[in-house]
Parts: sequence; structure tokens; C-alpha cells
Amino acid sequence: MKLHTFEVVLRLPGWMEDFLSNSKETFSSIEERMQFVITLARMNIEHKTGGPFGAAIFDLKDGRLIAVGVNQVEKINCSIVHAEILAIALAQKKIGHYDLGAKADMSYELVTSTEPCVMCLGAIVWSGVRQVVCAARDEDARAIGFDEGPKPENWAQSLEDRGIAVVKDVLREDAKAVLNDYNKTGGLIYNSRQEQS
Amino acid sequence: MKLHTFEVVLRLPGWMEDFLSNSKETFSSIEERMQFVITLARMNIEHKTGGPFGAAIFDLKDGRLIAVGVNQVEKINCSIVHAEILAIALAQKKIGHYDLGAKADMSYELVTSTEPCVMCLGAIVWSGVRQVVCAARDEDARAIGFDEGPKPENWAQSLEDRGIAVVKDVLREDAKAVLNDYNKTGGLIYNSRQEQS
Repeated sequence: MKLHTFEVVLRLPGWMEDFLSNSKETFSSIEERMQFVITLARMNIEHKTGGPFGAAIFDLKDGRLIAVGVNQVEKINCSIVHAEILAIALAQKKIGHYDLGAKADMSYELVTSTEPCVMCLGAIVWSGVRQVVCAARDEDARAIGFDEGPKPENWAQSLEDRGIAVVKDVLREDAKAVLNDYNKTGGLIYNSRQEQS
Repeated sequence: MKLHTFEVVLRLPGWMEDFLSNSKETFSSIEERMQFVITLARMNIEHKTGGPFGAAIFDLKDGRLIAVGVNQVEKINCSIVHAEILAIALAQKKIGHYDLGAKADMSYELVTSTEPCVMCLGAIVWSGVRQVVCAARDEDARAIGFDEGPKPENWAQSLEDRGIAVVKDVLREDAKAVLNDYNKTGGLIYNSRQEQS
């Protein structure tokens, strides 16, 4: 018997509905936006719904929240579902275009609680966002055992070269605290294929 | 009014159901598996359901087809949905694990009609596959205007270093022919943020 699989649903965890219905709609400063995203990462570990990572897409014109993502790898059983991937996919669905920079007057920002892994770096390039804001650094994720993959050393410059602004270290210590808390509670650190050295 | 988006469905195109129900279940040689994947890429352009890219996951133990993917970026309006991403996500759903290499006796292969972009390179690392087989090269995709992103020069070695075997140039000319046919028919070449040089 042949059993083919034709679709997979990428979904936010259940608690998100209440959380978002009580959340603000616009976030005027970059720190406010990052604080919101770090809260997503913390909620994800408190609810035990995934890894300690949060991301969101905002409209740079008015700070309006467009879509959110949290790591759902274990929950959905899908290694693709990093916070950034989910936020990008949901934002594109909401906007109705696969390129969030399709028109000159479109200007969207990805805010992520940790610098992107190599997969999410690529996803950022294809997403059409015009700015990426990061809190914890690669080395903060690596310090608790997560792996960022074979990412180019000059990854931030490679985004800048494509007209995507990169803002680093916004509330880095707050995001590091979430990573460290996750580590202390024995959360799963998965890494399919570590470098064999 | 707040309208939040909570899920996105990644789905194969409609023609795939008939196609797969008439397809073989096991493919013993690497060339047979690649021929199948190149056919997926060609079908995707013939049905006008997306870009000229196909991918599939096979069980290396017996050549059994596990899941397929074709580029669905335009169709789903989601820049994430490259052929490799869809094949990986569907395979993980079918197997029931986010790591296709979770157990010592699991041995899965990704066959892709074109060498992976930077996003899919990362997705391969996290997927748990133990072998990647490619037909057309990066430069073949670039030759018709597609962009592979800021991928490390030594990307194949970076996979090998993580215990993922890379086999290149399998039926490369056949896959190039699909890329070139797509280009001739005026298929959409999308690249959100090209390098500004």
C-alpha cells in the first residue's frame, strides 16, 4: 500500500491565541519590539512548547506587529520550524505575497531573539524583509549546545550587501538569560548532525 | 481589529496525487532516483505550478520513496517552500520524527534536481539525512538568473564534515535542460534581495 504525505501544517502553539489577543498592536521602539520577541521565547519554554527562540515580523513604517513565530521543531516534528521560518511564513500569508519587499513602499523587519542559523539566514534573504534585529549572539546559542550550522563568517555583511540592514545586540543579556534558563531546566538541545572533529 | 495568522499549510500541487499513485515505490539506483526527481521538476513547470526544482527523500536501505517536494513559492505565496524544504517536512511527518537520522538504523537520502541554496543547505543539516545527491550545479541555476544566496564556498565539505555524504553531477545535463526550458518559457525568476554590486 502506498501512503503518500501531501501536506504539513506549520502552526503556532495553542497558548499564542490568548497571548496575542492581549498583546499590543504596535511597538514604536526597537527595544519594545525585541522585548516582545524575548517574551515569546520565554513563554515557549514556560509552556514547554519548544526551544527558547522567538521571532516576529513588524511593519517598519508604523511598528505594527504582522506575525510571530516560536520554535516548534519538537511540537510539529519538523526540523524546519525555527521561530524565524514560522514568522516569515505567517507574515507572507497575511500580506499575501512571498516577497515582503515586493513593492517600494513595503518595509518589513524581522526581530529575532537569537542570531539566525544558516537555514534562517537563507530564509531571511528570500523573505524580502529590509531589516533584521537580533538579541543573543551565535556564541550565546553555542554556549548552551545549540548549533548555528555552516554559516558564513561574514553573514551580517552578506545581508547588508543585499540591502538588508542588520542590528545586533539589542537586549542581548535578556535573550541570553532565556537561553540559560532553558539550559538549566534541561530543555532538549537537538542538533542532527554535529561537526565531527 | 486584530487579525492574527496562526498557521500555514505547505502542500504539494494537485497533480501530484495522480502522479504519485502511478509512480514506482522503490528506486534501486541513484540515477533512477534522480531521473524521478528531475521528472518532478519538469512536471512542475509543465503544470505551471512553480519553479523548475524537484526533490525527494528516499530510504537508503532499500531505495523506497518516502516523500517528494517541488518548488511552491508562488503557489503558496511563501518564500520558504523550496522543493527540498517541502520534501524534508513531508518526510519527517511520515516518519514521525524531526530528525531523519535519530536512530542508528535510519538512513535517508535527499535527492535534489539542483544544488541547494543557503536556506536548504541549512535545512539539510537539521533534517538528519545522511546523503545528499545533486544534479544541476549552483552555476547552472545562476546562469538562468536564480540566486543561491550567501552560501559558503565549501558547502559540500561542510556537509561531509557533519557526516552527510554529498554526491554531485548525477544527470546534471538532464536537470540543466529543465532549468533552460523554464527560462525559455519565461518562467518567473524571483530573487528578493539581489546582491547590490
